[in-house]
Amino acid sequence: MTTCTCAYHDQLIEIRRKLHTFPEEGWSEFTTTAFLIGKLREYGYEVLTGTKVINPENCLGRSQKVVEAGIEAARKNGVSEELLNEMEGYTGCVGVLDTGRPGPTLAVRFDIDCVPVEESKDESHIPAKEGFASTRPGLMHACGHDAHMSTGLAVAHWFADNKGELCGKLKILFQPAEEGVRGAAGMAASGIVDDADYFLGAHIAMMCKSGELSVNPYGFLCTTKLDVSFTGRPAHAGVEPNAGRNAMAAACNAFVQLLGIARHGSGMTRVNVGQLTAGEGRNVIPSHALMKMEVRGETGEINQYMYDSAVQIIQGCALAQGCEYKIEKMGEAVDLTNDPELVDVLKQAGQAVEGLTVREDPMNFGGSEDATILARRVQAHGGKAAFFVIGADRPSGHHTARFDIDEKALDTGLKVWTNAISLILKK
Amino acid sequence: MTTCTCAYHDQLIEIRRKLHTFPEEGWSEFTTTAFLIGKLREYGYEVLTGTKVINPENCLGRSQKVVEAGIEAARKNGVSEELLNEMEGYTGCVGVLDTGRPGPTLAVRFDIDCVPVEESKDESHIPAKEGFASTRPGLMHACGHDAHMSTGLAVAHWFADNKGELCGKLKILFQPAEEGVRGAAGMAASGIVDDADYFLGAHIAMMCKSGELSVNPYGFLCTTKLDVSFTGRPAHAGVEPNAGRNAMAAACNAFVQLLGIARHGSGMTRVNVGQLTAGEGRNVIPSHALMKMEVRGETGEINQYMYDSAVQIIQGCALAQGCEYKIEKMGEAVDLTNDPELVDVLKQAGQAVEGLTVREDPMNFGGSEDATILARRVQAHGGKAAFFVIGADRPSGHHTARFDIDEKALDTGLKVWTNAISLILKK
Amino acid sequence: MTTCTCAYHDQLIEIRRKLHTFPEEGWSEFTTTAFLIGKLREYGYEVLTGTKVINPENCLGRSQKVVEAGIEAARKNGVSEELLNEMEGYTGCVGVLDTGRPGPTLAVRFDIDCVPVEESKDESHIPAKEGFASTRPGLMHACGHDAHMSTGLAVAHWFADNKGELCGKLKILFQPAEEGVRGAAGMAASGIVDDADYFLGAHIAMMCKSGELSVNPYGFLCTTKLDVSFTGRPAHAGVEPNAGRNAMAAACNAFVQLLGIARHGSGMTRVNVGQLTAGEGRNVIPSHALMKMEVRGETGEINQYMYDSAVQIIQGCALAQGCEYKIEKMGEAVDLTNDPELVDVLKQAGQAVEGLTVREDPMNFGGSEDATILARRVQAHGGKAAFFVIGADRPSGHHTARFDIDEKALDTGLKVWTNAISLILKK
Amino acid sequence: MTTCTCAYHDQLIEIRRKLHTFPEEGWSEFTTTAFLIGKLREYGYEVLTGTKVINPENCLGRSQKVVEAGIEAARKNGVSEELLNEMEGYTGCVGVLDTGRPGPTLAVRFDIDCVPVEESKDESHIPAKEGFASTRPGLMHACGHDAHMSTGLAVAHWFADNKGELCGKLKILFQPAEEGVRGAAGMAASGIVDDADYFLGAHIAMMCKSGELSVNPYGFLCTTKLDVSFTGRPAHAGVEPNAGRNAMAAACNAFVQLLGIARHGSGMTRVNVGQLTAGEGRNVIPSHALMKMEVRGETGEINQYMYDSAVQIIQGCALAQGCEYKIEKMGEAVDLTNDPELVDVLKQAGQAVEGLTVREDPMNFGGSEDATILARRVQAHGGKAAFFVIGADRPSGHHTARFDIDEKALDTGLKVWTNAISLILKK
Repeated sequence: MTTCTCAYHDQLIEIRRKLHTFPEEGWSEFTTTAFLIGKLREYGYEVLTGTKVINPENCLGRSQKVVEAGIEAARKNGVSEELLNEMEGYTGCVGVLDTGRPGPTLAVRFDIDCVPVEESKDESHIPAKEGFASTRPGLMHACGHDAHMSTGLAVAHWFADNKGELCGKLKILFQPAEEGVRGAAGMAASGIVDDADYFLGAHIAMMCKSGELSVNPYGFLCTTKLDVSFTGRPAHAGVEPNAGRNAMAAACNAFVQLLGIARHGSGMTRVNVGQLTAGEGRNVIPSHALMKMEVRGETGEINQYMYDSAVQIIQGCALAQGCEYKIEKMGEAVDLTNDPELVDVLKQAGQAVEGLTVREDPMNFGGSEDATILARRVQAHGGKAAFFVIGADRPSGHHTARFDIDEKALDTGLKVWTNAISLILKK
Repeated sequence: MTTCTCAYHDQLIEIRRKLHTFPEEGWSEFTTTAFLIGKLREYGYEVLTGTKVINPENCLGRSQKVVEAGIEAARKNGVSEELLNEMEGYTGCVGVLDTGRPGPTLAVRFDIDCVPVEESKDESHIPAKEGFASTRPGLMHACGHDAHMSTGLAVAHWFADNKGELCGKLKILFQPAEEGVRGAAGMAASGIVDDADYFLGAHIAMMCKSGELSVNPYGFLCTTKLDVSFTGRPAHAGVEPNAGRNAMAAACNAFVQLLGIARHGSGMTRVNVGQLTAGEGRNVIPSHALMKMEVRGETGEINQYMYDSAVQIIQGCALAQGCEYKIEKMGEAVDLTNDPELVDVLKQAGQAVEGLTVREDPMNFGGSEDATILARRVQAHGGKAAFFVIGADRPSGHHTARFDIDEKALDTGLKVWTNAISLILKK
Repeated sequence: MTTCTCAYHDQLIEIRRKLHTFPEEGWSEFTTTAFLIGKLREYGYEVLTGTKVINPENCLGRSQKVVEAGIEAARKNGVSEELLNEMEGYTGCVGVLDTGRPGPTLAVRFDIDCVPVEESKDESHIPAKEGFASTRPGLMHACGHDAHMSTGLAVAHWFADNKGELCGKLKILFQPAEEGVRGAAGMAASGIVDDADYFLGAHIAMMCKSGELSVNPYGFLCTTKLDVSFTGRPAHAGVEPNAGRNAMAAACNAFVQLLGIARHGSGMTRVNVGQLTAGEGRNVIPSHALMKMEVRGETGEINQYMYDSAVQIIQGCALAQGCEYKIEKMGEAVDLTNDPELVDVLKQAGQAVEGLTVREDPMNFGGSEDATILARRVQAHGGKAAFFVIGADRPSGHHTARFDIDEKALDTGLKVWTNAISLILKK
Repeated sequence: MTTCTCAYHDQLIEIRRKLHTFPEEGWSEFTTTAFLIGKLREYGYEVLTGTKVINPENCLGRSQKVVEAGIEAARKNGVSEELLNEMEGYTGCVGVLDTGRPGPTLAVRFDIDCVPVEESKDESHIPAKEGFASTRPGLMHACGHDAHMSTGLAVAHWFADNKGELCGKLKILFQPAEEGVRGAAGMAASGIVDDADYFLGAHIAMMCKSGELSVNPYGFLCTTKLDVSFTGRPAHAGVEPNAGRNAMAAACNAFVQLLGIARHGSGMTRVNVGQLTAGEGRNVIPSHALMKMEVRGETGEINQYMYDSAVQIIQGCALAQGCEYKIEKMGEAVDLTNDPELVDVLKQAGQAVEGLTVREDPMNFGGSEDATILARRVQAHGGKAAFFVIGADRPSGHHTARFDIDEKALDTGLKVWTNAISLILKK
């Protein structure tokens, strides 16, 4: 077995480069989503959108301002009001194609948002040199989600072309807002993967070079992202400091206690407050404070311990300073262990690709991925799930101004995907 | 007018010296109280004791261990079981003598406890040289309460001898546990001064030299003394630190916030944690912490603000660290403004004493005194109250090992007292 | 004596209203300064500018960005390049006029900057109704410095007209950047008042109503304004938190200790951190933190104690967290006691104005004023100094959107000024 | 091979029980050491003592008061002045016996101190029932060091009896003060093991049951124990709080920052302040604070990171509060990886004992042991080292009042020891 995918080579490159020029932040990907919907419908897919694929009650880190800017940009890009209405304000979509033959349901997931990084204009940076760099200041596909989408559409195209040889049903998820691990929770809560027998997700590059395929990565850190705000009462710091309720005091004292949450005997923990802004004027008792923070744990249980401890500290410090507080969950990812059956599928799929080295050894992913939330939802409903990494050389780190991928990896990746799908949905 | 008091000179010296040899800490003054009761009865007073003069529910800073040691010492000193039973475990007493003639009720107050100071054995220290130094290691009448008691008994004696010339009723309060401002609250709560039309209290020495009488001191700081304990849960600090609830963390975080209670726009504030002990072993998450602290305010309202802020911080820090907390009020004093009518009485009483300079100007007492609690109770019931200071040279500061008073001040003080009583209860 | 000033009534109103329409922030008052220079030269004054009146080394809270915007605005307003060159980038100016007759040198000071407040557009707000409201969004003469300048120019005009009747020399200081108590330090350090025998400054309104003159206000709070920055080292909060140096930790721990600086036994203290911004991204160990803070003390000595304690805490917390720190002084004001000789002059000057009530009692200014820095500089060189308050009804508080002054107070104020100058520089 | 050891059974039990009755704390084991010296000399060993086996400069956690009490107790127990002189104030000793035949030098180590635990008097507790419980209130051999010593003496006896069959040299180290990981550093620094080709140490019980032998345990936590004291300046908290230097503030702020030392990306960390005492009186700014703390790390490098971070925080907090500080190292242990050659020796030694299960799998020791310091010293000089665990059932946990060991394990352990020595020093 090796599925033939050479027909999709040009499409892979062309679409990746096109999407690279118009990066959109999480929850604002209206132009991008419109493009994806169009392609999926062109390939003959039933396409689900809006609240059918995103449960609004479980949306994390979704700013109305960003959403509105995304809609505005989409209008400027000629996206029709009809399509915008269909999206109901929520980005992302799911394409469904049934082979008409009994068989398992396979959900595959690709993420679509960009990173707030200013892309390099240097001639040595290929997107700049070849003219497909970002046209949007401060935004860039610097994590490879452009490649993910282009791969997803090629998979969709290939599957539509080859469904006669296969059985069961394919669901292609284009998930918004992966950065900050925000989008998967709402998509999972929509129930869209609850009927899936199998789930596959992948990332390009990371810890694998061109020519490598990691079929059993580990180290998906459980994490919860929180925005914490304290509200006190202002007062003139000279005349009547006692009349204030110092929100900065609540925040700073919470900060020092948060860093001091006791280590866990059973595994790794992390806690960080990455941003803190507090106060109004130099001579006013500060009445507002906002902390952007995160906790992590080696397991879901340990992450929960960190989260619970953090909440307790925040409550206590608000009480101590007579302030109100609000905790908003901004993102979430869990850990994942690939199901052995799918590890085996991926191994076969990779071994069938000439020149590809299959890495079965546990390679450390060393980050958080909210595909894990969808994967665990499938597992919770009795399905099997796996996440793999398609190697790609890159001149610079993820999330940096000179990030780029070796485009040859697109062909390799597509072959692995189509081989794996062929194995799972074979007649 | 000058009342004749020369008959009581020997008694003043003798009793002061006798009491000086056997100092007793607050709430343990059983031997001392037995002596006072005996004298008052000898002079013909009705003497009230135990819960008739101390409301147990309002006792502050009373340690059962100290009480028991005091009872034990009293037994060794030959105090009868009958008298101990009468005291019901509470020290202090009140002598009442009615002239049989209609007239006002006057309450006068003298305090009876000592200070935990080791008395100097140096030959230059008169009590050592003359053989009446403390016989109890680590305890000493280093604040002049021995002189207060001796004066109180002489006042009692004089009043019994002269009641035919006077009207109304005299109540002589011997109050325990003034150090740490602990005893007055329980005595006030017994209701013993609720029928008093006038209240007088005095201190010897302080900011006045021999030959001076301050009739309108100010600067009685409002203060509340608190013992705060946190209880958490121990855990092995290496194996399972997450299983602990860190009481030291609650205490240390409370400490830093307590010091940071916002200054008050309307007046002076103070806060101090004077002692902190926490933890069990080096490798155990600490499960106990105890803080001995105090707050102060220029007025009762400001002191209350400090107290309320402290309580809120303690609650919040306990919550933040998942600990229990207990706050125990260990002492309390309030501010006082002398009633002008009594300032005038004291002025006349002082001016009648040859060689005595009456200081009407506001002299800063600069400390806390729980006589203020009794005084304010009398004022709250419609009576009038004043506190005065009888000057006395002293070789060393209050509460130091070489503290002593110029005994000539005893005569002067007695004259002021008897003059004042004569003016208030004159037929 | 009452000096005749009716000739300047129209000028007072007209100039005040003109300046009110074009408020400029501290250190950006180039258009305003150009206007003042023009008028002073018109009246025959020698005018000193730029580094002759501002010592660049002692400039506090001067942002290059604000300066450049001010220069840009001045160009748009037609200020010549020649004049801008003369200013050397520093706003403010000093007019000097010598009577030619021997006599004392008198320095008088008027401040020129505005407040970042959006002026009310309500019809009930006279500047809005009468058409002289601010034309600059977010900026407003909401503290009366427009009235100060108009008074200063009228004083200048009157003195030029009447110098034949007077002796000595007048120096009229138009000081920039009083808000945030920033401008006086640089002006004092230029040495411009070092030869002054007398110094006078005044504020309009504050705690005095129309018809009142306060000649001996007290309660000029000593204060120091500081910007404190910490610089650490970023690191990925998940992968390698130990590699970071947490600047937010330095700031938050400094914050909690700053609030806890021990109260001072000799007088009032204050400390506030009014703004804190720290950190870069949610999952990055924060490498930058900035605190805008202030300390205050009842006396210069107490303020120094607060400042020294703050610096020590900042140093210690930077060290504890392995960070660098920078402390920048952004503003400063000291306390002031008016010299009795000048209090007497002001009293006479006020009493000579019909219908004016002279308040000799100590009225609480209750704020900070950097005129005190100039005044104390004069005193330090052997001269005498005073600051007074010219009452004026106002519909709303200083620094609020509806602040305005009763313009009748301009005439009254001018009379007090000219009377006082006549007394000091009389032939 | 199984070496015959039945001749030593009675000795094993008798000596263990004898030593159990007289437990001595670390650095006070003079009576115990005198007994050990006596026995070793009886068996024909050269015995080194005092500064020949302990380098005073590297003694950790050695309190002069405890040392003196131990000497006093030894005198009461009839230890001669001559022997006490020989010990030079340092407990522990080393017996050396040379076979006279060329061969390797083997150092074996047994620890000798007790734990501050009150032994159970319950009849179900065998030492109580059989009459060999501790005779010293508050002290108990509750970690099995009595068994270690009895085993060490039996090994010594056996080796002396069998040296004709062996080659090389045996050094038997009786190390003081293992509790708190204090004694090994000084013994290592004496150079006593620098010539050892092999080093063996063992612990009884822990994670192994009777009938088990763990030959390759892991998880020896690197740790450093510190006593940290801060010294400030006292001041009256009401009158002049600003005059104080608050040592409690230094300690509490250090505490909150210590708990917040950033987690390490490469492995486990721990930090605990187990005891904190600070302050003098309720109304005095605290001038003294003492923290008993520890840090741990998964590797020596990580432990060093924790230590360095702690020192930096302590320095910074002392500076911030104007206090002095002192850091005293009270104990230290490192990690250890057994040399494979000795793991193999131990495996053979165990397999030769009938009924004993040899556990080669990595079992988690889960604690700190300062034998690691001696072991690493040997490895650093080119030798090989290993630590093993001799299983023993126990009714209760180590360091508890009912701790006891299954005495049958003494025989088993001795067999393993003698077998291992036979393999290493075989002719």
